Amino acid sequence: MNWLNESIMHTRGVARGAIGTTHELSEDRQGQFHYTVGPYSSPVLNVVPGDRIIVDTRDAFEGKLRTEKDLPTQHLRVPFLNPQNGPIIIEGAEKGDVVAVYIESMLPRGDNPRGTCCMIPGFGGLTGTDYTALLNDPLPEITRKIDLDEDGVYWSKRVRLPYRPHIGTLSVSPEIDSINSLTPDNHGGNMDVPDMGPGSITYLPVRSPGARLFIGDAHACQGDGEVCGVAVEYASRTTIHVDLIKNWKIDWPRLETEMLLMSIGSARPLEDATRIAYRELVLWMEAEYGFDKWDAYMMLSQCGRVRLGNFVDPKYSVGAAIEKHYLKP
Amino acid sequence: MNWLNESIMHTRGVARGAIGTTHELSEDRQGQFHYTVGPYSSPVLNVVPGDRIIVDTRDAFEGKLRTEKDLPTQHLRVPFLNPQNGPIIIEGAEKGDVVAVYIESMLPRGDNPRGTCCMIPGFGGLTGTDYTALLNDPLPEITRKIDLDEDGVYWSKRVRLPYRPHIGTLSVSPEIDSINSLTPDNHGGNMDVPDMGPGSITYLPVRSPGARLFIGDAHACQGDGEVCGVAVEYASRTTIHVDLIKNWKIDWPRLETEMLLMSIGSARPLEDATRIAYRELVLWMEAEYGFDKWDAYMMLSQCGRVRLGNFVDPKYSVGAAIEKHYLKP
Amino acid sequence: MNWLNESIMHTRGVARGAIGTTHELSEDRQGQFHYTVGPYSSPVLNVVPGDRIIVDTRDAFEGKLRTEKDLPTQHLRVPFLNPQNGPIIIEGAEKGDVVAVYIESMLPRGDNPRGTCCMIPGFGGLTGTDYTALLNDPLPEITRKIDLDEDGVYWSKRVRLPYRPHIGTLSVSPEIDSINSLTPDNHGGNMDVPDMGPGSITYLPVRSPGARLFIGDAHACQGDGEVCGVAVEYASRTTIHVDLIKNWKIDWPRLETEMLLMSIGSARPLEDATRIAYRELVLWMEAEYGFDKWDAYMMLSQCGRVRLGNFVDPKYSVGAAIEKHYLKP
Amino acid sequence: MNWLNESIMHTRGVARGAIGTTHELSEDRQGQFHYTVGPYSSPVLNVVPGDRIIVDTRDAFEGKLRTEKDLPTQHLRVPFLNPQNGPIIIEGAEKGDVVAVYIESMLPRGDNPRGTCCMIPGFGGLTGTDYTALLNDPLPEITRKIDLDEDGVYWSKRVRLPYRPHIGTLSVSPEIDSINSLTPDNHGGNMDVPDMGPGSITYLPVRSPGARLFIGDAHACQGDGEVCGVAVEYASRTTIHVDLIKNWKIDWPRLETEMLLMSIGSARPLEDATRIAYRELVLWMEAEYGFDKWDAYMMLSQCGRVRLGNFVDPKYSVGAAIEKHYLKP
Repeated sequence: MNWLNESIMHTRGVARGAIGTTHELSEDRQGQFHYTVGPYSSPVLNVVPGDRIIVDTRDAFEGKLRTEKDLPTQHLRVPFLNPQNGPIIIEGAEKGDVVAVYIESMLPRGDNPRGTCCMIPGFGGLTGTDYTALLNDPLPEITRKIDLDEDGVYWSKRVRLPYRPHIGTLSVSPEIDSINSLTPDNHGGNMDVPDMGPGSITYLPVRSPGARLFIGDAHACQGDGEVCGVAVEYASRTTIHVDLIKNWKIDWPRLETEMLLMSIGSARPLEDATRIAYRELVLWMEAEYGFDKWDAYMMLSQCGRVRLGNFVDPKYSVGAAIEKHYLKP
Repeated sequence: MNWLNESIMHTRGVARGAIGTTHELSEDRQGQFHYTVGPYSSPVLNVVPGDRIIVDTRDAFEGKLRTEKDLPTQHLRVPFLNPQNGPIIIEGAEKGDVVAVYIESMLPRGDNPRGTCCMIPGFGGLTGTDYTALLNDPLPEITRKIDLDEDGVYWSKRVRLPYRPHIGTLSVSPEIDSINSLTPDNHGGNMDVPDMGPGSITYLPVRSPGARLFIGDAHACQGDGEVCGVAVEYASRTTIHVDLIKNWKIDWPRLETEMLLMSIGSARPLEDATRIAYRELVLWMEAEYGFDKWDAYMMLSQCGRVRLGNFVDPKYSVGAAIEKHYLKP
Repeated sequence: MNWLNESIMHTRGVARGAIGTTHELSEDRQGQFHYTVGPYSSPVLNVVPGDRIIVDTRDAFEGKLRTEKDLPTQHLRVPFLNPQNGPIIIEGAEKGDVVAVYIESMLPRGDNPRGTCCMIPGFGGLTGTDYTALLNDPLPEITRKIDLDEDGVYWSKRVRLPYRPHIGTLSVSPEIDSINSLTPDNHGGNMDVPDMGPGSITYLPVRSPGARLFIGDAHACQGDGEVCGVAVEYASRTTIHVDLIKNWKIDWPRLETEMLLMSIGSARPLEDATRIAYRELVLWMEAEYGFDKWDAYMMLSQCGRVRLGNFVDPKYSVGAAIEKHYLKP
Repeated sequence: MNWLNESIMHTRGVARGAIGTTHELSEDRQGQFHYTVGPYSSPVLNVVPGDRIIVDTRDAFEGKLRTEKDLPTQHLRVPFLNPQNGPIIIEGAEKGDVVAVYIESMLPRGDNPRGTCCMIPGFGGLTGTDYTALLNDPLPEITRKIDLDEDGVYWSKRVRLPYRPHIGTLSVSPEIDSINSLTPDNHGGNMDVPDMGPGSITYLPVRSPGARLFIGDAHACQGDGEVCGVAVEYASRTTIHVDLIKNWKIDWPRLETEMLLMSIGSARPLEDATRIAYRELVLWMEAEYGFDKWDAYMMLSQCGRVRLGNFVDPKYSVGAAIEKHYLKP
């Protein structure tokens, strides 16, 4: 039996797992991509819970790094980075609800070398940055172009990496703020959690009418923490299926896969992101799975799993997870 | 001689110290106050460099905590906190310029007890918060109402504090983001630096047409760090005088008083805010005061002054300063 | 073929994989356990590279929490926590060398309920602590006693956890400091990395004559981050096999298993621990596996694995790892 | 009247302000200086409460940087840095007591250029370090030699700094640990708080028999935060006067001057050091000055003063202070 049938999305969503209309959000239909996630942009699509959407995402550099000679500082201009598709209106979504986004598939688009990685001066985990402001010279600026397909990511003559696609940036709109697409927070944003790939469901807390879903930043693969600041960025055709869970009060994004439930926190310093993720998980186990709060806390000290999404963005993201089999009554 | 005549504002500003028209930004004229600082709201006032503006600010709780029985969780609703006047358009301001804001005076408005302090659950420097997410019970919720006038802040029978007013939140708009008025960043925002009172000039980097100046959050006094999360908040009549410095490239807010020059950084963790502030100060001394970079760095290690603005907001603010007499050639 | 034959320990160690004498370090032979790791205590055992040692470790509370009525604040006294066996002298070990510790097996000792978990006031990941000093009331104090054997950890009626033993605290002596056994740093210490179990090899940088190996703090299982501050602590019979690698300059502990190589960093804030771990891994790949430094950096951004050891000790520990198959020429 | 007569030291100390014997701790008498602060070294001096000690401190580089051509990496070897005089036994001091150290005067010793500042690769506030581990190239290595006397510090042709001496490192021994002299913690250590100069009293919590006082690291002047990592280091003749306060339970160092009371916290990240300092101050006001805890907390939010000691050492140090006049009943 498909685990989805027992997922929170299918058991509590308005559509109850039924698949509705399929929409295509091509680059043309998208028109202007967005670099900030908020309530002030015009919707590109209206869907109802249960609908499927095929989204053509652009890579995080919007295709501007075409060859290894194209350097980031020549072609990119802050804050116009990490283009997002959307906003997509989920009809009926109101503050206090949750939008569920199941990722059905992610396929590469465009010609090889489709993948891009780079070292951007003043950005990354092992360098001084705009916030960890130092006087050292920046690291060298390097662009890498990488062939990839559904069988693998051809990193170098020596190394072939698996194709493990995921969505780096998935958001609903904050209530009144508009947050650049490089920053994760409790609305989602640039979380860079590798678990957010095909077969996963992400739950996002609705804060504005229609939820206003934004999606982008496909990664063909990514290590924990995204240490150099950049994954293998690529343009994708990503198929999602959305639903709406009414009156589910959550403060931070959550994620479900066949095997685990995860809470995602985003903050600095990194221990605060971890605290958020684990606190949300403790409270979730208490509220919905019948655990005593302190039993949940001590038990996660024995079986909790932590995924470092990134420690390179303006806020860092951490997922704290528990295997679902532990939650059985 | 008035030190202002030799200030950066007067020597480099478009108005060269001349005072233009005086505008009044009363509560009526303001109409809707703002809780987010960005490019999407409608201007309430257009001024030219040199103009003076008398701004009637509301207190950070918008006057909703009237007695000590009015508790924050009963009367306040996130994110509708810290109301801001503005946006004020500075004519001619473009990206790459700097707006200078000289605070001429700050007077209390309204009837006593005009001042409000409180302990808000999940907010403050010595408690778990939304970001430093813990499982401890929150601290008690308390509202304090305080009489104050230009002679003092009558804290308790035992303690009278000096009236040392300053502006907690002063901003120009980000380019595409809109940031809630509780958060400081490189656009200014909720910095809570006690030096930002009458007699100070704040320099803010323009990022959107007309600069879009926002101002609010008057404090009758405040300790370093604003440890409980709240100053003595009050409604003020604040008179400012604005000017425009063309083509001055700064990345973070700066402040000038008769005695010192300061750079202000806002980030988490707190060492990153400090790093930003000191790096900006080193680079400023190198760029404009003829110091070798490494000489400036080592010299600030001997005479730099640090002001902790706050360590309670979503980002923390630190000012790094040098006494101006050290800058003489 | 056994992967150990190709391990760094077997290929570069003085003993070349040969097993020497087996020593028993019983509680009696140990006599006084140690709560600080340094050069000032008297050795309990001298071994030569290749020797095997069977160590009877005490649990982190030294057996003082016998029933669920025994509360930590009644029975424990800081800094006399986390008792360590040792110091063990590795003959021939000098500053600039590395000690390799292969964990052969870990068996429970004593009668059930052998396992102890607890919530200690002012300690843990989701509470104010001595360092994250707050004014909130502490969390409740709770002691849990848990049956366990080699088949499982019988957490509650509802939940059975796998027996996944590992050593929480493994150290060599600093050069002149003596560091309490609760703190990890570049000498090893209380790293709490779950990968440090049977089948793993830990490499520790020698800083004092004879290395002075300390070991203790067996965990029957532990989640990433050890969120409540305590694992399932138990008394173990742990069999290790030690070797000595001459003239291997490493700055931080490293770990090898059949599948991966890991660097371990310990620091606050947590991003600094992560930076240390990843920097060491990049430099290791450059120095010993023929990678260009920037290629290693960008590649780990795609395939690096992060293990959060703990974010509860006086310093936090993070392991950054790469699967060994990527290192093949 | 001398404020000292009403100080905590004079009113609660065993000696009640009486001055006893004067001891000289010359370089010869000191013999071996110490680079680690703990219970394992041999005392150089025994004094009774009330005694005065004239201490000849060496500079933090032990005089090894004699000219501007002497680079740190050529002449210094970690961990043999920041030499400390002591340990000095205070007779009668037991765990649970407090040692008070009044600094009477600090005079320069030796020939000019007596002062040394330098940039040490991998050390400082605006560079990657051993803990904030990055891949950037280090900053340049520079040694500065500076003339100084009691009238001033002759930094450069352009800049003369005031002579504002203070003790950078002042400690009692931990109970069982021995901590390198570069690190501050709750035993004191390398706090680098500029207020700790002539006319100040430092209170340190005794944890081992006789307290075992260590002192060193004189600075001729220092800015807040010691941003480049080094002050104007010099060899001093420092005269102190020590006393013993029985049964005063404090967890962290405290400081008193004529004008203020300060608590000092040392931790990373910097907000944790600030939290410690402010929590200790709140609890101090509650325990000894008759303030309600929450009143103290909210009041410090209006009048607390923060001094950044350093944000460059292995732990950062912050002092939180209140002006003494606010404490009057």
